[in-house]
Amino acid sequence: MKLEIFAALKYIVYSPSTLILNIHAFRSQKQIVLEEALVIEPYVKVEELVSQHHGNRFIRLELLEGQISISYKATVDNAYKETDHTNLKEVPVGQLDSSVFPYLYPSRYCQSDKLFRFARNKFGYIENPFLKVLAITNWIHSHVEYLSGSTNAHTSAYDTVTELSGVCRDFAHLGIALCRALTIPARYFTGYAYKLKPQDFHACFEAYLGDEWVLFDATKLIPLNALVKIATGRDAADSAVASLFGNLLCQDIQVSCNAAENNFEPYYYDASRLTGLAYQ
Amino acid sequence: MKLEIFAALKYIVYSPSTLILNIHAFRSQKQIVLEEALVIEPYVKVEELVSQHHGNRFIRLELLEGQISISYKATVDNAYKETDHTNLKEVPVGQLDSSVFPYLYPSRYCQSDKLFRFARNKFGYIENPFLKVLAITNWIHSHVEYLSGSTNAHTSAYDTVTELSGVCRDFAHLGIALCRALTIPARYFTGYAYKLKPQDFHACFEAYLGDEWVLFDATKLIPLNALVKIATGRDAADSAVASLFGNLLCQDIQVSCNAAENNFEPYYYDASRLTGLAYQ
Amino acid sequence: MKLEIFAALKYIVYSPSTLILNIHAFRSQKQIVLEEALVIEPYVKVEELVSQHHGNRFIRLELLEGQISISYKATVDNAYKETDHTNLKEVPVGQLDSSVFPYLYPSRYCQSDKLFRFARNKFGYIENPFLKVLAITNWIHSHVEYLSGSTNAHTSAYDTVTELSGVCRDFAHLGIALCRALTIPARYFTGYAYKLKPQDFHACFEAYLGDEWVLFDATKLIPLNALVKIATGRDAADSAVASLFGNLLCQDIQVSCNAAENNFEPYYYDASRLTGLAYQ
Amino acid sequence: MKLEIFAALKYIVYSPSTLILNIHAFRSQKQIVLEEALVIEPYVKVEELVSQHHGNRFIRLELLEGQISISYKATVDNAYKETDHTNLKEVPVGQLDSSVFPYLYPSRYCQSDKLFRFARNKFGYIENPFLKVLAITNWIHSHVEYLSGSTNAHTSAYDTVTELSGVCRDFAHLGIALCRALTIPARYFTGYAYKLKPQDFHACFEAYLGDEWVLFDATKLIPLNALVKIATGRDAADSAVASLFGNLLCQDIQVSCNAAENNFEPYYYDASRLTGLAYQ
Repeated sequence: MKLEIFAALKYIVYSPSTLILNIHAFRSQKQIVLEEALVIEPYVKVEELVSQHHGNRFIRLELLEGQISISYKATVDNAYKETDHTNLKEVPVGQLDSSVFPYLYPSRYCQSDKLFRFARNKFGYIENPFLKVLAITNWIHSHVEYLSGSTNAHTSAYDTVTELSGVCRDFAHLGIALCRALTIPARYFTGYAYKLKPQDFHACFEAYLGDEWVLFDATKLIPLNALVKIATGRDAADSAVASLFGNLLCQDIQVSCNAAENNFEPYYYDASRLTGLAYQ
Repeated sequence: MKLEIFAALKYIVYSPSTLILNIHAFRSQKQIVLEEALVIEPYVKVEELVSQHHGNRFIRLELLEGQISISYKATVDNAYKETDHTNLKEVPVGQLDSSVFPYLYPSRYCQSDKLFRFARNKFGYIENPFLKVLAITNWIHSHVEYLSGSTNAHTSAYDTVTELSGVCRDFAHLGIALCRALTIPARYFTGYAYKLKPQDFHACFEAYLGDEWVLFDATKLIPLNALVKIATGRDAADSAVASLFGNLLCQDIQVSCNAAENNFEPYYYDASRLTGLAYQ
Repeated sequence: MKLEIFAALKYIVYSPSTLILNIHAFRSQKQIVLEEALVIEPYVKVEELVSQHHGNRFIRLELLEGQISISYKATVDNAYKETDHTNLKEVPVGQLDSSVFPYLYPSRYCQSDKLFRFARNKFGYIENPFLKVLAITNWIHSHVEYLSGSTNAHTSAYDTVTELSGVCRDFAHLGIALCRALTIPARYFTGYAYKLKPQDFHACFEAYLGDEWVLFDATKLIPLNALVKIATGRDAADSAVASLFGNLLCQDIQVSCNAAENNFEPYYYDASRLTGLAYQ
Repeated sequence: MKLEIFAALKYIVYSPSTLILNIHAFRSQKQIVLEEALVIEPYVKVEELVSQHHGNRFIRLELLEGQISISYKATVDNAYKETDHTNLKEVPVGQLDSSVFPYLYPSRYCQSDKLFRFARNKFGYIENPFLKVLAITNWIHSHVEYLSGSTNAHTSAYDTVTELSGVCRDFAHLGIALCRALTIPARYFTGYAYKLKPQDFHACFEAYLGDEWVLFDATKLIPLNALVKIATGRDAADSAVASLFGNLLCQDIQVSCNAAENNFEPYYYDASRLTGLAYQ
């Protein structure tokens, strides 16, 4: 599906600083960036980097005092894979590919080591792993209130599971932590989401089921089949949209994501058809 | 230097489980494994894996009910690099190699995002980055009490900085968190340590200074020049010596590390000579 | 009902220390201490105190180096009040007696301020306050595993609600925190419990319903009608059985509580009869 | 000294709610309320209460939907006691009056049980207890940044000791926690503070030294001799200026405190004269 994405960020820089942005559309065989443009005003030298581990694309800017605007625009054609998980079996740790191991371990915002008992009590009885993760997203959606401003950059899954409020980032972290606590590899996913309201970058998560990374979103704010992937990582610690080093402040963020073609049919999971979507 | 290392672990397995061990000596051009032997009793199939990101060597065992003993023995010849850091300058984030970025971000046990102010207040004034990390290890050594049993698998740097007791793992986590809070990449290092008392695997940390990973040890329990590296990682979450999945219990651990040659001269850092050691 | 209670504690004292014990049976018009004896070996001067706020009886001992044994024995005749709460209505904060206000606020181990949403989601819909607290105890009983050694002196309700394991102290703290989060005053209750296995002091909690403090016990380990009250307080911070100041270690605890009369009929709550018990 | 105090609060009430305010000047033999006036618009019935334990004066209002303004004005003549603590000796726990025991234990926001080692390391060597508490306030003042908005209602001493930012409430909680960790009883103190900028209620703390409650303020924002005491308590959990039950929101707070007489000489502690001030 063809999508048009746009992001504009404004920063005020109080003293020379480094800004790392991860707002570029991920490039893969299944997600083709048809065209893209990056505009920086006033112009500063931009360094483009691709992370070794995840293939995320980021830019690094060395900023001097003053204001700076960065805008990014792209047209992306991406495809997701649909897989029926009706007969999915749990994969024992002993058969998991070692490359997914990092996503089994606890991370900064996903303290799965503290949630074993909770996760097993609530979801342990469900046999089909797809249904298990679906039950996790349903539990989060019905128990955690989506409430802007109720959490901050330190908030982690351990907080959210008790305090029960948060934003997309917190919903994703809790989903990841609960999956890992059940020995299902899970990772953080950031992207542009079709007509997300209010406008912003989106965060959701992927669980490793069968042999693919299946997308889940506990916020249920968006159709699952109209995302443009930006990055994946263990959690928001290593896949933040923006990392700031120095003395600078974000003043404005504009984000949009619209269909570049007609006949879009939104897709959501429900327990009646176990078809999962995997972006690549 | 030639070192002879040995580890023996015994587990009791209550129901079919997976055990992942990371006790093999790391292999590199500078750390040559001259000979090694792994004995498992009763015999079970062993799968050897090397992690993509860090090159750590681990084995995966599928265990049935009963007892199992694993012993590993090796002779290793390793060399560390000595570098004089007297004129070391701080490297701005904008000039860091992107491969070290993962070690700048907070992780499960190293919540550097909560320690910015603390780290800057205590160590921010020190210009030379080697002296900065040395000051961190000295602060930890003089403020944190080495106390077996005072911490557990959930204990993190955020706890240790206040509760001020712990074991080598906790000392390393706090060192890492403080480095990252000062924008110095840092990672967890596990190894066999020469004549460590009491016998155990050892954990310390590396800071990325200049263009190399320099070893630091806030416990000051061992000479820095007689370690055999096992693994590196972000923290103990992804470089644990043993990861247990299922229902099994460790009953005994024996570890030793002795010199296989004479004329060993122990080396410790002090502020009078700024020569750092880097294992590879 | 007449009960015979006994407690014997042994301490080893490494340097001069202060020990405060709260093991004496509470005295009230409804709990008559028929006889009691305190033996301390070797003899040291004992100071008896009664706390202003709660009327708890405690003793303070100034100890020198060495070993000390304290044993306490009493025969107590106590009565609890039975009240049918079938028609109980919620009491708005505006009508609560101001003397119960301290038990509405969060305390060290009962962080009700972090559990508002959780408590309201789970139990907010239940109208009858007795049934509300009964649902809280049932939830704790079925979700939290009673597991000796899984928690320590720092463990609080905020940990237990997520980690889901603990001992009687943790069960009580969570019950209290959830009540307070629902604007029901609640306090910590320690006592001798009839035939508790394993032998130990017991902790449970009281909720202020109607105009009395009704006993609840989420462990369901004991009949509710055969307790000897020792103390009440906000939580274990101010109603600990023993408070140690100095360098001393408890080596042994023996506790027992037996009926001094026949025809004892154990009483437990269940949703079919809403009769609550109140000790005084 | 005669002081004129004033407070005006505005709330918007979304549904029937209870508001408990603790803004009245404390009454004692040493703090005479010469005149006072409370105005509530629109008028609702006010219930005046005095807490049993601390003697704090509070009012309870049952509010209906709509807006409400409460203003309080008083002229107070108060005296503090000055005591020279040059020869102050530490009081062993065994000699403390049992009425101060509640202030030795950890409370919601003052987790002294987690700060023993930290407190002993930093301040344990200081013999004179007045100097000990003075050193605590100096440490807090020089290490914790006064930063509005950096903390919230859940922030506790355990957070502040590491995150090192906060407001007067956080400074007080940390002071209290450190005192208690050193077996010095300490409690929370709220009041009107002379010419505090920005205008607000103030929080500081008292340590029990000799046989009196000596005032300390780690913010150093105000002279210590021009406070009007409102309340004392274990921490902000039981001595909040306002406790809200229901659905209402504070929209505006105005506070002032001015001298009603001339010749005011501000008084601050410093290590050169060990004269402490005690309000009563």
